[in-house]
Amino acid sequence: MAKFLKRGEHILGVDIGGTKAMAMVLDHSFKCVGRAKKKMRCDKPGEKAEDRVIRAMRDALEDAGIEQVAGIGAGSPGPLDPDTGVIIDTPNLAWKNFPLAQTLSDAFGGIPCVIDNDVNMGTYGEWHFGEVKNCKNVVGIFPGTGIGGGLIIGGKMFRGFTGAAGEVGHMTVEPGGPYCGCGKRGCLEALASRVAIAAEVAALSARGDAPYIFENCGTDLGKIRSSTLAKAIQNGETMVEGVVRRAAYCVGVAVGNLINILSPEAVVLGGGLVEAMEALYLEEVERAVKEHAMPFLRKKVRVVPARLADDAVAMGGAMLIAEHLA
Amino acid sequence: MAKFLKRGEHILGVDIGGTKAMAMVLDHSFKCVGRAKKKMRCDKPGEKAEDRVIRAMRDALEDAGIEQVAGIGAGSPGPLDPDTGVIIDTPNLAWKNFPLAQTLSDAFGGIPCVIDNDVNMGTYGEWHFGEVKNCKNVVGIFPGTGIGGGLIIGGKMFRGFTGAAGEVGHMTVEPGGPYCGCGKRGCLEALASRVAIAAEVAALSARGDAPYIFENCGTDLGKIRSSTLAKAIQNGETMVEGVVRRAAYCVGVAVGNLINILSPEAVVLGGGLVEAMEALYLEEVERAVKEHAMPFLRKKVRVVPARLADDAVAMGGAMLIAEHLA
Repeated sequence: MAKFLKRGEHILGVDIGGTKAMAMVLDHSFKCVGRAKKKMRCDKPGEKAEDRVIRAMRDALEDAGIEQVAGIGAGSPGPLDPDTGVIIDTPNLAWKNFPLAQTLSDAFGGIPCVIDNDVNMGTYGEWHFGEVKNCKNVVGIFPGTGIGGGLIIGGKMFRGFTGAAGEVGHMTVEPGGPYCGCGKRGCLEALASRVAIAAEVAALSARGDAPYIFENCGTDLGKIRSSTLAKAIQNGETMVEGVVRRAAYCVGVAVGNLINILSPEAVVLGGGLVEAMEALYLEEVERAVKEHAMPFLRKKVRVVPARLADDAVAMGGAMLIAEHLA
Repeated sequence: MAKFLKRGEHILGVDIGGTKAMAMVLDHSFKCVGRAKKKMRCDKPGEKAEDRVIRAMRDALEDAGIEQVAGIGAGSPGPLDPDTGVIIDTPNLAWKNFPLAQTLSDAFGGIPCVIDNDVNMGTYGEWHFGEVKNCKNVVGIFPGTGIGGGLIIGGKMFRGFTGAAGEVGHMTVEPGGPYCGCGKRGCLEALASRVAIAAEVAALSARGDAPYIFENCGTDLGKIRSSTLAKAIQNGETMVEGVVRRAAYCVGVAVGNLINILSPEAVVLGGGLVEAMEALYLEEVERAVKEHAMPFLRKKVRVVPARLADDAVAMGGAMLIAEHLA
């Protein structure tokens, strides 16, 4: 890997999520030398979401035993403008036209700070540090509560005209299908997110078709995590398996469409569902790709699992600021 | 427009199709000074497809009254390799691993020749000479016998890892839908190409639900052209209109998905169907875009009709060779 930082220099990579913020301090060789996590729920009067993020960053510095870094790279829910560092709107965090990059920079003495969409950052992290480095065109898909996507095109993060390209979760996969959180019908996210899976599995549970789920989660879809689904499948709950396989197949249909459009070298699949059930999940995605992508285009494309797990976004942020500083 | 050619220099733009080849001679300001068309069906023993193309080119030179050009840019059905100028396989023209660029170059004294996929060239032509110049990211879609697509990304023709990106006609729009020529089910092309429309309209004709079509084409879908469809609709055949509107809506679903993924500045729609029924066609596409693209992404995107009609591919080829010569 090219050298971006001087020996002795450190950077902060930050992953801002709806429920928690995670910060990593990395040395010049991108080795993690300190990390910290904070819940995003504010527990003091007057505290704001950005205060929680900054506390996670300070705690990570303390964990590393260092006082200053050369720069900050942070991934955040969007939409946001990476050029100005402004968050346009994040309902969960109550940020609206909020200058996140400036705020984080100011909190650490005015050092450079870059921000981008969390899924872009995750794809960037996987691209640089995972199994797909050296690929010029990569698609990243992260099925979770929602389904996010990131695109590397021509060796660079691709943001499109609005800056918000890569909304693979809102591709229409089944016209007239179930409602999505975005208000449309039949989006990939409405068919294959963890919420969509949990809703169908909760119905199985209510009907007595998924005893393991019923025992552990009742009929509350909010309690059905990726790990619960994996355990139910291990316990032989075949209908739960069927629901997960169908969702993974839907993701594969979208992957097939993306291969037809973009002809990438690799597709990276990450997030909790993939991590919890990697073999089963990839099997269905590959089956769908075989059935929906053109033979000539799919022949050489690699569909690979993400490798950085919860560190992908922070590592992507670290890489982006390192490039910015170089 | 930047200057690419010297005063007095000419170039050949060539559009090679399954049924005919069309060549244009352009001067240094891209003004057409000669053109010719030839059917691709060989009418002499021993004649090959490439001989027909070269005859069209020679006739265009004769029409222009000039003897030599500085270079050739040709669009051809693919798959092909634009880097080596080799056609990988075109069943209609019996070219397999055929060095098209070299062959055309040799026929004109070894002058430079570039080739690309016809839809890429058409998109390139519309991009440079139509309504979307100055846009960095553009999607071109050309519904016809099949449905081809071309992508301009970051101001350049985008070909992806295999060189064959942009297969928008083979995006799965309706999983489990009708069979496509590619062997898959539910591709956009299987739902919305002229062949798909003609098949459904031929059934209307057979059932007595489309008297104008029955009178002019019987029940032979091969006789149902875009202009026939347009006339039937003008004559008040509402079921024919319904079939065309549904097909256009399907194209709009795909356009919506492409907007969600790529966030382009503009989408160009071309081909015979769009030309014959522009207002009706764009109305359905725009309705689908509104229903399937994310509000933030679709807000500023322009969906525009192609402007070069049958000249788009040849003009794109001319532009590409002009840039190559510059």
